[in-house]
Amino acid sequence: MTALIDRHTVPSPASALVCRNCAAQFPLGAQHACFECFGPLEIGYDPAALARVTHDEIASGPHSLWRYAGLLPVGQNPATRVDSATGMTPLIRADRLADELGFTGPVWIKDDSANPTHSFKDRVVSVAITAARELGFERIACASTGNLANSVAAHAARVGMPSIVFIPSDLEPAKIIQTAIYGGTLIGVDGSYDDVNRLCSELAETDEFENTGFVNVNVRPYYAEGSKTLGFEVAEQLGWRLPGQIVAPMASGSLLTKVHKSFKELVAAGLVPSSSWRVFGAQSAGCSPIATAFANGWDVVQPVKPTGIAKSLNIGNPADGPYALDAVRSTGGAMASVSDDEIRAGIRLLARTTGVFAETAGGVTVAVLQKLVESGAIDTSVETVVYNTGDGLKTIDAVSEGALPTAVIPPTVKGMREAGLL
Amino acid sequence: MTALIDRHTVPSPASALVCRNCAAQFPLGAQHACFECFGPLEIGYDPAALARVTHDEIASGPHSLWRYAGLLPVGQNPATRVDSATGMTPLIRADRLADELGFTGPVWIKDDSANPTHSFKDRVVSVAITAARELGFERIACASTGNLANSVAAHAARVGMPSIVFIPSDLEPAKIIQTAIYGGTLIGVDGSYDDVNRLCSELAETDEFENTGFVNVNVRPYYAEGSKTLGFEVAEQLGWRLPGQIVAPMASGSLLTKVHKSFKELVAAGLVPSSSWRVFGAQSAGCSPIATAFANGWDVVQPVKPTGIAKSLNIGNPADGPYALDAVRSTGGAMASVSDDEIRAGIRLLARTTGVFAETAGGVTVAVLQKLVESGAIDTSVETVVYNTGDGLKTIDAVSEGALPTAVIPPTVKGMREAGLL
Repeated sequence: MTALIDRHTVPSPASALVCRNCAAQFPLGAQHACFECFGPLEIGYDPAALARVTHDEIASGPHSLWRYAGLLPVGQNPATRVDSATGMTPLIRADRLADELGFTGPVWIKDDSANPTHSFKDRVVSVAITAARELGFERIACASTGNLANSVAAHAARVGMPSIVFIPSDLEPAKIIQTAIYGGTLIGVDGSYDDVNRLCSELAETDEFENTGFVNVNVRPYYAEGSKTLGFEVAEQLGWRLPGQIVAPMASGSLLTKVHKSFKELVAAGLVPSSSWRVFGAQSAGCSPIATAFANGWDVVQPVKPTGIAKSLNIGNPADGPYALDAVRSTGGAMASVSDDEIRAGIRLLARTTGVFAETAGGVTVAVLQKLVESGAIDTSVETVVYNTGDGLKTIDAVSEGALPTAVIPPTVKGMREAGLL
Repeated sequence: MTALIDRHTVPSPASALVCRNCAAQFPLGAQHACFECFGPLEIGYDPAALARVTHDEIASGPHSLWRYAGLLPVGQNPATRVDSATGMTPLIRADRLADELGFTGPVWIKDDSANPTHSFKDRVVSVAITAARELGFERIACASTGNLANSVAAHAARVGMPSIVFIPSDLEPAKIIQTAIYGGTLIGVDGSYDDVNRLCSELAETDEFENTGFVNVNVRPYYAEGSKTLGFEVAEQLGWRLPGQIVAPMASGSLLTKVHKSFKELVAAGLVPSSSWRVFGAQSAGCSPIATAFANGWDVVQPVKPTGIAKSLNIGNPADGPYALDAVRSTGGAMASVSDDEIRAGIRLLARTTGVFAETAGGVTVAVLQKLVESGAIDTSVETVVYNTGDGLKTIDAVSEGALPTAVIPPTVKGMREAGLL
């Protein structure tokens, strides 16, 4: 692949791929590692271009993440966008959750189960496939813990592009079926997500995959920018200001890092007043390499072998771990991890108090929120946004035990009386 | 219950409850059957009030079904609304589906799996709970084939209202769990939906349930109006005009009837140009009382005992059957029913060509669309809107057979080669 993002046809504010390690710069192509130091690349922007974006321009855009095209690397020309109406998901005021947890400040749930395939991955996939087409790829691929698989397969079907999706073979049945149903190629890999990811990195270098954009490998710098819209939307939905605290789940650590980046870009672009915010990260006890590094004061994240029910967060060797640590430490936030039982309780607490049915990752985040309150690490007087990244229907087995009817009766009023319900 | 909708505090365009059988009128209370003839009641409107609604007023409203409050019986005062960001779901241009079916006119999917609990029931529940609070009810209830149960339990949790939900005890596990998770009271009934519905009608008359609004029993006239927003949104999303053909699933027949009503109201209010449209109805072969009446030229719908995988459509004694027959016959449309295998194929066809994963009811509708094309009953040169009313994750067992990875391999490039994938 030698294609580059053409800034003449696509008037992108992006200026270069920038190494997050050594700051070396490269043209906007299909590259994800620095040729100098092998560090990860991210998108660099022309600050003047970002500063030209206005609230009015955003408000007059579509009711989807593409309203923020002026702050993204691709999609400035509407005809180039893969737009499945992803984004602009509800920001739900959670007063009853706040009361139960003892918050005096407002608590909000940013509910990304409302996206088309019911996870935040529709954001990164919308941006990644849009970029992949600009870069000349003819097939789309990914390594996934499940939600990304669903989203890539669905978007490929939507735009009529071939897809090949790689998943650990022991994923939740709902996530396997929700990928296979779209008719693309689905490869189960006997191994962990980290094994799947390594295989995809190797395949991306083969001649047979030269025409294939792996959204989270060789298209990763573009892909990751999609998560910034989780920050942009919260700011807009709050009336163009930033919350004082955010709590986000961590798998690779990318989402949390990018929401933090989005807040910095909004301030730099003059779209929100400058304010301070603290970033909090959530992991499951079965896979907590980033939270463990935080607890021990390490700069390096030690890989682990993941276990536990929060499979969508089960990345044992998280690519963005160091950057997530930096975002949390530099803002005075904290991290915590929770057990499988606490995750289940978190799902139920969120459902009962807000009507939002989250997948296990959302249970992790709510249970960590509760733990941070109990430890005093989070300030209950400060406005807090909690990210729910996926849907309870995808991990239904996690809460099936005990989720039964209150009673089963014959279809008569007498039956109601005999069951003590009248 | 003696409370009425107070048109001084809630400036509703609704004027009365009107009997669909004998046209007798009653005040806007919690009443669903005519005191004169026992016929079903629906909401009557002041035509002058509807005619005052403008495109600008709607466009300046929220990005939810409440933008149409000027055309609904309740919710004119934003503070009274139960607003879970329901509605304004995507209208997806389905060119690849159109090509496969041989359409030369445009085909659109109105995708209501995008609602908060992933079915169109969030629409009727938003309106019903808003009305129930206006009418003074303190608890909310329903008889449900599953999707309504999910939605009522979730909305009750959201607004902090007690709920009691009645379902057939043999429902899909996902729908049982997605109701129980919200922590309300859930009653499994050993019987069909029709048995459940009869029980709820009896309970609504008891003293113990005097404080309880059954959304689809004593609040039904308000509840049913929520489905009109499926018509309003399509008209707005097409640029304020009506499509030439619509295809909708039928359980009670209410949805199809109300979309038809919404088109008539839009024309009468001057919000769309007058045009002709044809209405098509879809049922499963396991429960096709309305389609059978259509095929036989009957005016009366003969009740059946439902079977088959499309459980959300399994109403054997459909309350709105005669009105659905009338809507279809009066517009020159048609009805058809499809087998369980055809339903599964319909789900796969829709997923593969549009990226939309529908529940069995959506499979029914797409399979019926295909059958109507094959029989020549639908005009493939005319713009057609197909309603998908629910999410594939809720009926995942229906398509689990065969929805498997293309291959399962060890995590190596060698494994890819040995599986013939490189």
